[in-house]
Amino acid sequence: MTAPIPDRLACLQRKLDSMPPVRALGFRAAAFDSEVLRLSGPLAANVNDKGSAFGGSLAGLLTLSAWGLVDLHLAEAGFADAEVYVQDSTLRYLAPLYGELHAEARLAPGQSWEEFLTTYRSRGKARATLAAVVTLPDGSPATTMEGRFVALRPKA
Amino acid sequence: MTAPIPDRLACLQRKLDSMPPVRALGFRAAAFDSEVLRLSGPLAANVNDKGSAFGGSLAGLLTLSAWGLVDLHLAEAGFADAEVYVQDSTLRYLAPLYGELHAEARLAPGQSWEEFLTTYRSRGKARATLAAVVTLPDGSPATTMEGRFVALRPKA
Repeated sequence: MTAPIPDRLACLQRKLDSMPPVRALGFRAAAFDSEVLRLSGPLAANVNDKGSAFGGSLAGLLTLSAWGLVDLHLAEAGFADAEVYVQDSTLRYLAPLYGELHAEARLAPGQSWEEFLTTYRSRGKARATLAAVVTLPDGSPATTMEGRFVALRPKA
Repeated sequence: MTAPIPDRLACLQRKLDSMPPVRALGFRAAAFDSEVLRLSGPLAANVNDKGSAFGGSLAGLLTLSAWGLVDLHLAEAGFADAEVYVQDSTLRYLAPLYGELHAEARLAPGQSWEEFLTTYRSRGKARATLAAVVTLPDGSPATTMEGRFVALRPKA
């Protein structure tokens, strides 16, 4: 039996808090429903010289939301010790954001968690492509990311 | 006549320091020779849960180094008030970095500052593609970025 969702989100938050840059930018694990992970960050800690969200903060929050979703799925399947790395990502900055940063990550179309976990179980290594978006207050995209992540079984 | 290079680097540093996330991550404008801008950041403020540089910090430093190079070229040409935005970027995380973060940005192959500035002067808007890299201590790439940036003349 795996831990209930609020516990898993608290676990992820502890992992986030263990990273000084993530703590400094105030990123929070906001919600998780097994398909989507939501992270958020305050504008004040992530603002640029034009009063909008800093591109580096947007990239960081998007990367972390996708990374966290992979991490949560592995933990849920009993692989809490898997090491997850970002391999590559493509970001599109579509509109400036003048409010709190809200990111949500999900598996990219055509990808399957079942397949990802089966591969990880048998080979100790698996890749997944994730899609993440930071939305404007009206729900339209401010910045989008597509990225590939790799999970590795830690060396004994 | 434009300001000497150390003054321009100090100007850029003041702009960086005006952004809370950049200040929190300790990013510094390290060197500029008109072709290349170098920024750096301490590992301690940018470390992840595995003891290596956090992907979001790498993305932020790379984005900022390219953004800063565009900003410096515009300032040098007398357009210190130009607004520079990142449009899109592609990042490749090639190897983990366990030391200080050093990024350098330059114009991508086939691009020309002269053309970029001529377009900005005549249209009040211009685009440039930049290439940036964070290197490992041995000089090989840890993370690379290619990104498009747009400069806009501020509205009167």
